[in-house]
Amino acid sequence: MTTIDLNSDLGENVPERVVADDGAMLGIVSSANVACGFHAGSPEGIRTTLADAVAHGVTIGAHPSYRDYEGFGRRAMDVDSATLQAHVEYQLGALLGLTASVDGAVRYVKPHGALYNTIARDERQARDVVAAVRAIDPSLVLLGLAGGVVLDVAEAAGLATAAEAFADRAYTPGGELVSRSEEGAVLHDADAVATRMLRLAREGVIEAIDGSDVAVRADSICVHGDSAGAIEMAAATRALLEAEGIEIAPFAGRVA
Amino acid sequence: MTTIDLNSDLGENVPERVVADDGAMLGIVSSANVACGFHAGSPEGIRTTLADAVAHGVTIGAHPSYRDYEGFGRRAMDVDSATLQAHVEYQLGALLGLTASVDGAVRYVKPHGALYNTIARDERQARDVVAAVRAIDPSLVLLGLAGGVVLDVAEAAGLATAAEAFADRAYTPGGELVSRSEEGAVLHDADAVATRMLRLAREGVIEAIDGSDVAVRADSICVHGDSAGAIEMAAATRALLEAEGIEIAPFAGRVA
Amino acid sequence: MTTIDLNSDLGENVPERVVADDGAMLGIVSSANVACGFHAGSPEGIRTTLADAVAHGVTIGAHPSYRDYEGFGRRAMDVDSATLQAHVEYQLGALLGLTASVDGAVRYVKPHGALYNTIARDERQARDVVAAVRAIDPSLVLLGLAGGVVLDVAEAAGLATAAEAFADRAYTPGGELVSRSEEGAVLHDADAVATRMLRLAREGVIEAIDGSDVAVRADSICVHGDSAGAIEMAAATRALLEAEGIEIAPFAGRVA
Amino acid sequence: MTTIDLNSDLGENVPERVVADDGAMLGIVSSANVACGFHAGSPEGIRTTLADAVAHGVTIGAHPSYRDYEGFGRRAMDVDSATLQAHVEYQLGALLGLTASVDGAVRYVKPHGALYNTIARDERQARDVVAAVRAIDPSLVLLGLAGGVVLDVAEAAGLATAAEAFADRAYTPGGELVSRSEEGAVLHDADAVATRMLRLAREGVIEAIDGSDVAVRADSICVHGDSAGAIEMAAATRALLEAEGIEIAPFAGRVA
Repeated sequence: MTTIDLNSDLGENVPERVVADDGAMLGIVSSANVACGFHAGSPEGIRTTLADAVAHGVTIGAHPSYRDYEGFGRRAMDVDSATLQAHVEYQLGALLGLTASVDGAVRYVKPHGALYNTIARDERQARDVVAAVRAIDPSLVLLGLAGGVVLDVAEAAGLATAAEAFADRAYTPGGELVSRSEEGAVLHDADAVATRMLRLAREGVIEAIDGSDVAVRADSICVHGDSAGAIEMAAATRALLEAEGIEIAPFAGRVA
Repeated sequence: MTTIDLNSDLGENVPERVVADDGAMLGIVSSANVACGFHAGSPEGIRTTLADAVAHGVTIGAHPSYRDYEGFGRRAMDVDSATLQAHVEYQLGALLGLTASVDGAVRYVKPHGALYNTIARDERQARDVVAAVRAIDPSLVLLGLAGGVVLDVAEAAGLATAAEAFADRAYTPGGELVSRSEEGAVLHDADAVATRMLRLAREGVIEAIDGSDVAVRADSICVHGDSAGAIEMAAATRALLEAEGIEIAPFAGRVA
Repeated sequence: MTTIDLNSDLGENVPERVVADDGAMLGIVSSANVACGFHAGSPEGIRTTLADAVAHGVTIGAHPSYRDYEGFGRRAMDVDSATLQAHVEYQLGALLGLTASVDGAVRYVKPHGALYNTIARDERQARDVVAAVRAIDPSLVLLGLAGGVVLDVAEAAGLATAAEAFADRAYTPGGELVSRSEEGAVLHDADAVATRMLRLAREGVIEAIDGSDVAVRADSICVHGDSAGAIEMAAATRALLEAEGIEIAPFAGRVA
Repeated sequence: MTTIDLNSDLGENVPERVVADDGAMLGIVSSANVACGFHAGSPEGIRTTLADAVAHGVTIGAHPSYRDYEGFGRRAMDVDSATLQAHVEYQLGALLGLTASVDGAVRYVKPHGALYNTIARDERQARDVVAAVRAIDPSLVLLGLAGGVVLDVAEAAGLATAAEAFADRAYTPGGELVSRSEEGAVLHDADAVATRMLRLAREGVIEAIDGSDVAVRADSICVHGDSAGAIEMAAATRALLEAEGIEIAPFAGRVA
């Protein structure tokens, strides 16, 4: 039976400012990337999402970021290695603490935003992140962009890795994401997205923006949840996959 | 042989702004209360101090605070229980993570500043802090003000506790600290301070501000290190205690 | 001819995280309450909105908050007078500076979130805010909740004031807002909202949640813009008011 | 009669954490560079220092920084022009507001820390800072490092400028500061410092670290106040200058 994971970015709420329906999303995904407080959320808001994830039986991952609350972790930063490693260790430790407090466990790490993009191509910062993950818990899986440098660095350092594809993004013929600044980069048709992800799960192939087929490694599919439409798209994707006999299950435990 | 612990607040440096000579202090104390980033320090600065503590063989404690970087954690805050517990869990987790990364271990928790003072008398906030400590690691010792409510709350919840006295502070005949706003509240004579602490270690007694004797439970003596004079006072205290046959050793492991 | 103002909360974007379509809203409202950086936005994002407001000919107001970026200014805070006054002065000064830089002018002050609610009933904090406004520029108008204490305090201190009603909120028979926690507190039907605001502009009356009529002083109507539906509702309200011969124009300059 | 200015960095206190004796320093200097909240201080602490400066008749300057509270503004930052200009405008506006509230006036701008150093050699960032100063108030004087690029940029843009020398720093034969990382970079002998500054005031010359004489333009001398020894050095410098007939007076008003 074919199995794939669905993941989403959660834990970005603060009790006074709920920006996403984490509860709804936890009914759809198999893995939750939970903010660690550097780009969004607050300790008490994060803890609420973690408790919900445990209640839903969803696998928990840490979603660390550059220290950039104002910029939502989307600003590229040229941080030295000692600082970057310590920042990631601090966040992973904090999330492990909060998760233990709700009787859960952190199984993987997916860096957020600008840090995610940077370590897909910058080997030095990728090594810093990998060193932090290893120092905190070498059994944590590193979830990153399919084809990204960080996956190679992590594997060389002995970490298990998982690659993800993005449900609502167009791909180049070379297998990279089409930049958000280009037309057609973001997909809005829930049915079309679901159909693309079904083909990815079955064949490992996505139709690129020029109509050609491109192979994409995907242990997991990232779905977004920061709007009502996004949650509908995620639900439609899950529904089609399950209707077509694809099992939705966490990648952590499967990958090595 | 009589044994007592010396502790000090450390980890408040940022690489770009070194405010205290943590290295010097780590040569004097047996226990280091290390900032967790909410009142001072930064992940990379804290990590440096943690590595130094491991190198010096000094026992490491977490020094969590209200979230109040601007006010150095000295502002009293009426934080609800869910928030306070999550804030303490977040900080303890972060410090455990950084400490594990330098091959050390966190043995105790000493809350900082306004939080320290509040839980010495406010039972609700004391319970929130104790719940957080238990959730992260129930083998952590709670270090607090001698006579403070938090010690009772912690013991009732099954945590080991330790009480501390302040080397450079005057005491009331009732065994409480003389408020900093009163004359004579802070002592500046290193020899006098050392002599007072020697008597405390031997007899469990301090001369109060009115000249009477007052019994003070002290598993540990807090010395300050944020000025050159303070480090000298700490060194003088240690020197006299050792010269008089008092052993300086961590309380963690001794108390239960 | 009957005239009323439409105002909305803007300037909450950061270049890396655009949360609202300020440009669309500036085509609808006559007054823009612009964030000052304590609850949302960033200096460069705020400046962009200010430049857009100038280009649209929309009157600019300052929207100061408690210092609470994580909680979006929605947390009630017991801040002492010296701190609160300085915090408001700091924000007003910053916004005046940025506004001058784009060749605009700040005409009024509408406090945000928890501060807005607190000064509607807490006279001490109301006085602190009024003192700050007077110190920065006594010609600034204070925009607040109809019936709120702060309007009385401001008038007694010589400031011009303006009162506002909320387009999408239900009212009690006593003229207060129905708490968001109660059913029916927030209205979602754009046509019904527009019709209510037309009656308010013409008759000074709103139908309360129990069906009775209640008189509400309204120099301005607050419309929200943080969702696509909200912008449609604001546009519908403006369209109906104009179609029925109500002039939409800034209150600053009219009130005294 | 020869006249020179003495300036110092102030306003870095928070009520709960007083790090410097601003009152003592205001009795020594003729110009106060007051923090704007991005690298240190708080609105209420800054306001207290501003009120003291007004009471002492000391000329007030703004001391804006990169947004880097944790790093005390000492971290170099590659900030884009729109952001840097907005950050400086925000800070200048905030300080002008607080200063107006205590019936004072801001006369000049001296950037802080890493921003100060960067604009001494980086023309793009220098232009951004100058644009911000001009936008807020083109009559503000720009105080910067003698020989720094920012002084040329400011003059070309029509701003008045002033150059400063550092009382406690060694100079290279080329007239630059010896890096703090080199031996002998920071001077500690109060008498020697005072004598050096007397010669600078009289002859415009400082003895460089190699014993040669170097001409340094100095409209103002920067003295530090963040330790008891520093305040003594500042007082000694002022005393010698006055005893030798040098007038201590603000540069703002003199320079053009």
